[in-house]
Amino acid sequence: MRVEDLILVSVDDHVVEPPDMFEGRLSARAAERAPRIERLESGRDVWMFEGTALPNVGLNAVAGRVPEEYGLDPLAFSQMRAGCYDIHERIRDMNVNGVLGSLNFPSLAGFAGQLFSTCPERDIGLELLQAYNDWHVDDWCGAYPGRMIPLSVPPIWDPQLMADEVRRMAGKGCYAVTFSENPEKLGWPSWHSDHWDPFLDACQETGTVVCLHIGSSSQVVITAMDAPIDTMITLQPMNIVQCAADLVWSPVFRKFPDIRVALSEGGIGWVPYFLERIDYVYQHHKAWTNQDFGDKLPSQVFNEHVLTCFIDDAVGMEVRHHLNLDHIHWECDYPHSDSTWPQAPELAMKYLDGLPEDDIARITHRNAMANFRYDPFAHIPPEQATVGALRAQATDVDTTPVSHGTGKFQDEGLVTAMTLAERISKAHK
Amino acid sequence: MRVEDLILVSVDDHVVEPPDMFEGRLSARAAERAPRIERLESGRDVWMFEGTALPNVGLNAVAGRVPEEYGLDPLAFSQMRAGCYDIHERIRDMNVNGVLGSLNFPSLAGFAGQLFSTCPERDIGLELLQAYNDWHVDDWCGAYPGRMIPLSVPPIWDPQLMADEVRRMAGKGCYAVTFSENPEKLGWPSWHSDHWDPFLDACQETGTVVCLHIGSSSQVVITAMDAPIDTMITLQPMNIVQCAADLVWSPVFRKFPDIRVALSEGGIGWVPYFLERIDYVYQHHKAWTNQDFGDKLPSQVFNEHVLTCFIDDAVGMEVRHHLNLDHIHWECDYPHSDSTWPQAPELAMKYLDGLPEDDIARITHRNAMANFRYDPFAHIPPEQATVGALRAQATDVDTTPVSHGTGKFQDEGLVTAMTLAERISKAHK
Repeated sequence: MRVEDLILVSVDDHVVEPPDMFEGRLSARAAERAPRIERLESGRDVWMFEGTALPNVGLNAVAGRVPEEYGLDPLAFSQMRAGCYDIHERIRDMNVNGVLGSLNFPSLAGFAGQLFSTCPERDIGLELLQAYNDWHVDDWCGAYPGRMIPLSVPPIWDPQLMADEVRRMAGKGCYAVTFSENPEKLGWPSWHSDHWDPFLDACQETGTVVCLHIGSSSQVVITAMDAPIDTMITLQPMNIVQCAADLVWSPVFRKFPDIRVALSEGGIGWVPYFLERIDYVYQHHKAWTNQDFGDKLPSQVFNEHVLTCFIDDAVGMEVRHHLNLDHIHWECDYPHSDSTWPQAPELAMKYLDGLPEDDIARITHRNAMANFRYDPFAHIPPEQATVGALRAQATDVDTTPVSHGTGKFQDEGLVTAMTLAERISKAHK
Repeated sequence: MRVEDLILVSVDDHVVEPPDMFEGRLSARAAERAPRIERLESGRDVWMFEGTALPNVGLNAVAGRVPEEYGLDPLAFSQMRAGCYDIHERIRDMNVNGVLGSLNFPSLAGFAGQLFSTCPERDIGLELLQAYNDWHVDDWCGAYPGRMIPLSVPPIWDPQLMADEVRRMAGKGCYAVTFSENPEKLGWPSWHSDHWDPFLDACQETGTVVCLHIGSSSQVVITAMDAPIDTMITLQPMNIVQCAADLVWSPVFRKFPDIRVALSEGGIGWVPYFLERIDYVYQHHKAWTNQDFGDKLPSQVFNEHVLTCFIDDAVGMEVRHHLNLDHIHWECDYPHSDSTWPQAPELAMKYLDGLPEDDIARITHRNAMANFRYDPFAHIPPEQATVGALRAQATDVDTTPVSHGTGKFQDEGLVTAMTLAERISKAHK
């Protein structure tokens, strides 16, 4: 298999919402209350919503910047690569990276769409959220048929509204919804309650994947107040093992036999250990913990329901036979700082090389197509969907890393989570 | 390789301290203040110290009980298998399980010896702690030469005293000390400070292994208030990945090139993923986080310094080539509820079968001997140290599971961490 012949579909990228996203989509009453970009005197761009300057314009939108400037969010749209927020430039950036398809998580809205729950008038919150989803499907994904896998955000404050919105979005061809890896940490009932049943029922009925992105509990792993930020970055993906355990032991998978969740950006190399462990715990402890999986093991239940996702994971490839091979997905993570853009195909080939071609096809695109009901080949013939073909359309795209002269930490020694938090706080003044 | 020919040394078991452990070892002033067992009216045994009834007599000392009664600590010594606290019975239980050698973590003292830090008079705290360590080495380990690997507890309140005690214990042939996976969570400075340098220096100088047991931060993983207890049990071992990341990114390994730490009960199947991840983070982010490992990668640093330990880990065996094979250790975990006693050899053989004999020898005993400076063969010839030879000495040991008629959860549905906490709280009244 040659790099040029790969067909790459990424189930984890990120959109930075453009300033005009709500234009023409709202009633006068809601338009007045919609989030809007303000440029501060310092030249910084912030979203204003409900009297609050929102802490990120880009949530780490650093693609294309020199590595010395990773870690801090850009201060203004002008410091971002246009592909972060402009769909035409995004497609060019996908082409130059050889990526055919992409599923985009929100930035402004929050991983669980929780922004809109802060609106005191619930009906306005819902109108804003639906406008957001319509913009995402119609404008962001609709501009280039076959290139984007749509993903909706849920009205987290009401499980019945969530169900309605899942069904409405499925009617528009959107079969993925983003939610929280641990809703209790956001102040809502946990996976162990029956609170989310209407929502989960709608997802099961419509074949909608519930995407749980790392960090979507709004909690990061801080081992110690003076721990270098590298500690947190190292731990964040694998930390979703907490969500995996929570879900398998919860009633969710037993109550909804066809529900599927994705552990977005969670990596996969740790999964076989986890599956062995959870089976050991079940067999060793069920006599007193009163757990019952009938004729199945917890590992089987995981493999039936959980879609796994990774950016760069040679170990995961080595141990993939312990996972459900139809549930493994590749990711690019554009434009976040863990992204492999614009060398994603070359880096992917490092660990795909030597795998059976059928395995490579499943991991790089066929599983994403099947599990997200995404059919790029209805619009783009396979021979025009390869890394080589897409890159041939993008020979004029400049990928040279750019410095914006801000965000460097080089005079501060080791960067801790606290250093970063202080910088982010300053960046919104 | 046959099961009977294995030689098994476990680097993670637990001693339940017997009521008479301090007798004859203390000044009159300290003896008055020493922890002592009191039998409550309800028939329950508790340790009393500084006016407090200590929350466990056995920290899950459930070996030999029927599985329906796992999970809750025994209420009295009479509900425990005598091997928990009686060295003669312990040796018989090791024999019947085919285990030659064993390293025992404390119960009463806390994993980091923190019990003695609660004594307001520091000199009395130190006298109690030293009596504790002397009892451990002289009585518990000394009774059967060649059978026990000694382990000391540190006076955590003073790094210089910790250093002195490490040196004193090394003088008595003890080359392991137990400490906290995350001292900040116990209220002390983190690994990233230089606070622990005198202690670490003494460990490096004497070749003493710093043993970091899961749970030794006194924190458990509670994903949600209503999560079944199985969630916590599943996550607890792998949770030590936080300590692994913390240590590799901290100055400890770079400052003390010969220090070695053990991740006790941490499992190993997740380690290769972690090593790949930490190298990715280093290479991808060091330009802005300012990390520097010179000509090494973080994974190499981990493999040089970290001893890995597991109870039951087939995946770990499969991926062991990513680890330092001289640093992998088998564990039994007697008498805790995750233990494989009394079928440890048979369960171990399930994942050892098919490995090269040299690998099996390293993992089951040679690494423990080298890394903990433990030489059982000075006392017991290898042919008398095998599973078969030891079991032949223990044909009269009864391993039939016993019911004490307490601790069952069968009427309560799923057991959550809260259910358990309430039961434990009641058990000390």
